[in-house]
Amino acid sequence: MRLSQMLFVTLREDPAEAEIPSHKLLLRGGYIRRIGSGIYAYLPLMWRVLQKVSQIVREEMNTAGGQECLLPQLQPSDLWKESGRWDTYTKAEGIMFSLTDRQERELGLGPTHEEVITTVAKEMIRSYRQLPVNLYQIQTKFRDEIRPRFGLMRGREFIMKDAYSFHASQESLQESYEAMDKAYRNIISRCGLAFRAVEADSGAIGGSASQEFMILAEAGEDEVLYTEDGKYAANVEKAVSLPIDAEISPFKKYEKKETPGTDTIEKLCKFLQCSPTNIVKNVLYKVVYDSGQMVLVLVSIRGDQVVNEVKLTNELVRLAPNYKAKTILVLGVPDETEQQKWAAKPLPLGYIAPDLEDGYIDKVKDVIPKFLRLVDQTAVELKNFVTGANENGYHVVGANWDKEFKLPSLVVDIRKATIGDRAIHDPTQILENARGIEVGHIFQLGIKYSQAMGATFTNEAGEENPMIMGCYGVGVSRLAQAAVEQSYDKDGIIWPVAIAPYHVVIIIPNISDKEQIEVAENIYTQLNKIGVETLLDDRDERAGVKFKDADLIGIPYRIVTGRSLKSGKVEVVERSTKKSQEIAIEEVVTTLKSWVNSAQN
Amino acid sequence: MRLSQMLFVTLREDPAEAEIPSHKLLLRGGYIRRIGSGIYAYLPLMWRVLQKVSQIVREEMNTAGGQECLLPQLQPSDLWKESGRWDTYTKAEGIMFSLTDRQERELGLGPTHEEVITTVAKEMIRSYRQLPVNLYQIQTKFRDEIRPRFGLMRGREFIMKDAYSFHASQESLQESYEAMDKAYRNIISRCGLAFRAVEADSGAIGGSASQEFMILAEAGEDEVLYTEDGKYAANVEKAVSLPIDAEISPFKKYEKKETPGTDTIEKLCKFLQCSPTNIVKNVLYKVVYDSGQMVLVLVSIRGDQVVNEVKLTNELVRLAPNYKAKTILVLGVPDETEQQKWAAKPLPLGYIAPDLEDGYIDKVKDVIPKFLRLVDQTAVELKNFVTGANENGYHVVGANWDKEFKLPSLVVDIRKATIGDRAIHDPTQILENARGIEVGHIFQLGIKYSQAMGATFTNEAGEENPMIMGCYGVGVSRLAQAAVEQSYDKDGIIWPVAIAPYHVVIIIPNISDKEQIEVAENIYTQLNKIGVETLLDDRDERAGVKFKDADLIGIPYRIVTGRSLKSGKVEVVERSTKKSQEIAIEEVVTTLKSWVNSAQN
Repeated sequence: MRLSQMLFVTLREDPAEAEIPSHKLLLRGGYIRRIGSGIYAYLPLMWRVLQKVSQIVREEMNTAGGQECLLPQLQPSDLWKESGRWDTYTKAEGIMFSLTDRQERELGLGPTHEEVITTVAKEMIRSYRQLPVNLYQIQTKFRDEIRPRFGLMRGREFIMKDAYSFHASQESLQESYEAMDKAYRNIISRCGLAFRAVEADSGAIGGSASQEFMILAEAGEDEVLYTEDGKYAANVEKAVSLPIDAEISPFKKYEKKETPGTDTIEKLCKFLQCSPTNIVKNVLYKVVYDSGQMVLVLVSIRGDQVVNEVKLTNELVRLAPNYKAKTILVLGVPDETEQQKWAAKPLPLGYIAPDLEDGYIDKVKDVIPKFLRLVDQTAVELKNFVTGANENGYHVVGANWDKEFKLPSLVVDIRKATIGDRAIHDPTQILENARGIEVGHIFQLGIKYSQAMGATFTNEAGEENPMIMGCYGVGVSRLAQAAVEQSYDKDGIIWPVAIAPYHVVIIIPNISDKEQIEVAENIYTQLNKIGVETLLDDRDERAGVKFKDADLIGIPYRIVTGRSLKSGKVEVVERSTKKSQEIAIEEVVTTLKSWVNSAQN
Repeated sequence: MRLSQMLFVTLREDPAEAEIPSHKLLLRGGYIRRIGSGIYAYLPLMWRVLQKVSQIVREEMNTAGGQECLLPQLQPSDLWKESGRWDTYTKAEGIMFSLTDRQERELGLGPTHEEVITTVAKEMIRSYRQLPVNLYQIQTKFRDEIRPRFGLMRGREFIMKDAYSFHASQESLQESYEAMDKAYRNIISRCGLAFRAVEADSGAIGGSASQEFMILAEAGEDEVLYTEDGKYAANVEKAVSLPIDAEISPFKKYEKKETPGTDTIEKLCKFLQCSPTNIVKNVLYKVVYDSGQMVLVLVSIRGDQVVNEVKLTNELVRLAPNYKAKTILVLGVPDETEQQKWAAKPLPLGYIAPDLEDGYIDKVKDVIPKFLRLVDQTAVELKNFVTGANENGYHVVGANWDKEFKLPSLVVDIRKATIGDRAIHDPTQILENARGIEVGHIFQLGIKYSQAMGATFTNEAGEENPMIMGCYGVGVSRLAQAAVEQSYDKDGIIWPVAIAPYHVVIIIPNISDKEQIEVAENIYTQLNKIGVETLLDDRDERAGVKFKDADLIGIPYRIVTGRSLKSGKVEVVERSTKKSQEIAIEEVVTTLKSWVNSAQN
């Protein structure tokens, strides 16, 4: 492609809308344009990158036994009502765009395709002899994000590869899951990126085992905890660990103490001269289920620990059937207006005891919430602990479970693992952390969807069972931007060769110099002919502008037909290292060909 | 691919939902599944066809100077309000799905991308030096069709290639338009299909010149009129012609006649013993513009002619500025309830005179419509004509314009051309007709969008002008189904080699015969290695089932490793001709390779 004929406009200044380097660089380099909040046009250079990533994904999926298809983006609400996700996706979380057609039928814009593919499988698959099957598609997906940001990282319209597998047995699912794990590692490696595979929370998709693939980069929205020995890595949402040991409590005797102005753990420790590990902290949450049921949840956890709300949500979803509900619409701390609806008197915030319900929850008011107590494992083990006294400005010390306070029956792990914790697999290993960009996620779904939607098969014994499912996603457009986030310098993008929009850019410093043009045109034609994708900067611009643009858009190799022509050579610069060398004109084509090839192996 | 491992399910019976052969065959062959009204899943075989069509489109677009990109499907309503199409597309015609996001902002689901691309061009293009530019994308589009039908032919979600070009001059647009014309002809020819390029109406897209590419097939929704000499072809919506000459009127004297029960042209001719060409027929339409203005339009046309409502609409849109409107929301015949709002007395339907307004339109009623008269050229030329007397059961005969009736000032061409008419370019040529499936449409848009949206550039003289635009669409998924509609037999689909999902299917008649398996596996491996895309039917099914399935899914060549193995040969059958021959095992790979290659050149 000749730059003179391309829609190619670069910006010198960082656009105001961009917050992270990759977003700025893609805008400045003319790769993308914003059309609306979280909605971008992929311009020709970007489209080439996306096509390359897609092709790598396609090849690895095919190798792993996937069959490519394309499912509709418009999805009838009926399917989502069958699986039970319509309300969660369109109302509770509201991440699915929905609309009504001219017949007033409800449709959703697919953020994911479990419902559609399960319907297809249900209609087409009857027997174990047709299993396993793995179908995938590369497609634009939609999510009405609360806070679209970072360009393609968290857009409302984005490109995904999603795959779905169907199995007659858990062993078969396990095999596919492992094949996908391998395919995902290959995809990211072939794109030239550093990543980490981590244990993950399964979230609203559901299922048991799940693993994420994280591109390591400072601007990553996710936190990863891992051990140096390489044996443990998990998303902080999911991570488990051994917390540090609690110190021995300095309080041997149970008593109520006046502790004025100690509504935080830090202030309390200072006042009482004790460790945060001596304290049982009690946090109140308001939960609203999709059935309309409201529940107040009091979580007791050791004072130095933080509640992991993802884990808490999972526990509460597990309890949902008790409330004739499937999912949670609201999880939050009840504010004052909220409290007035059901509190008998103002809550002693900062001084709540593990038995807050006695006296504070007015059971005769209009809204009578269910009250639920959860205790984290870290709090269960404490002896002679400090905790709130249910009275402003007062705590109790030297308390014990089942003496002063009844131990809640629901003992759970809802603490947030953190850097510095000891690993469970080997307590000598200490958790470290890193920031990551999630570009892939694989799930063992089990029978969640097939059971709900009646997608069954007949097994060898003639019995009808729901198919066992897996699902596997790669964020194609996100991965492309993550590559930039992992690889850039002050001058611009440094594309890995495998996904660069072009391999080589040839710069003609002076477009009125016939020799420069002739040599450049010649190399340009030869390189493209042998599959080295080459741009020719034949614009009527100053050489300096051309060099700056080449650096900004990050083409791996730059050929300059400048002064060195006198000695029968061209200058060749590697973008990543900025190393420059002169190569004989007659050798440059084969040299570049071999560089490009070896960079992709 | 091995059929045993593929999600491959064929149906013996025609599905009830399908009306035309291609739709039935794609459903029966396991190519597509219906997910909702006008919404289909493209299963792996179909996806391969679509990928092949897309690749041919891509290559031809690149050759013609196009640059591939991808624009968002979610489009902010602001852009469509700027161009003035939001109301037409979401309300009047209602073909654009629209929705509101969690911030209550309106978005449309792109049926076309003039607004988005014009915005991109406006932001990026400043100077004539950046022009011309041609951007294209291959993308899923959405239309909330009133009557989705025929599978992929008229779906609500479908795959399009759309291209948009920007120019500094009309000459440059003309060049691109011609390059696109050529590219489109190449695309359809390379897909192996018979087509006709025809003059077309530009419809809601707007612009001046426009041409459609029609795949000829009986089930086509469009009617094409053409001449044998190949010099004229047009969509019936757009076609012009010379009508047959009018006969000389038998009525020399003007008089009012009682003509009971003659509310159709046929009855009237019989009663009066005259020709339909002696009659001026007056048809009343009710028009509602987007400004809310309602207009009654009385169209006078020669009795043997039919009003072409597409042409009528175009005339009325041309008049829209008079009514502070841009477009028409309703065009229809006013019914009785409607009439009661403004008619002074019941209208003499079937007996309307060219001056209906006098006496029948009650100007003091609540709704006072504007009244407009249009006369078609065919009616203007009549002398001593017959027409309605504005009184039930009465006509007048021997009438003349500007004697008994004032000739309307708006003389227009709104007659429907029809088979048997004489061609304008050569009156000895008679129009013939054919059914076609529109798979491509190219438009010279001019400055409709660039002017409305302020997409200007600075020309060589330093003046700022709106860019001149063209737009060009190919219905990728529609083309794929049209191929089937043009090429099938009683046993199934007959794919052209270039877009067949696979080139060859190898059938093992007896999968417990080791020799059959070995030979088949060997040929299968070799063919795929050299790029002949081959399916292996290794299913545990009867040979008859396999033959039926192969015919149904329409793979161009079938290899059977059956009885002929004894003589060192395999049977090879060509799907289109059903011709069978035996080919030596060691020669079959090179033979097939050469067949497949030559079929695509």
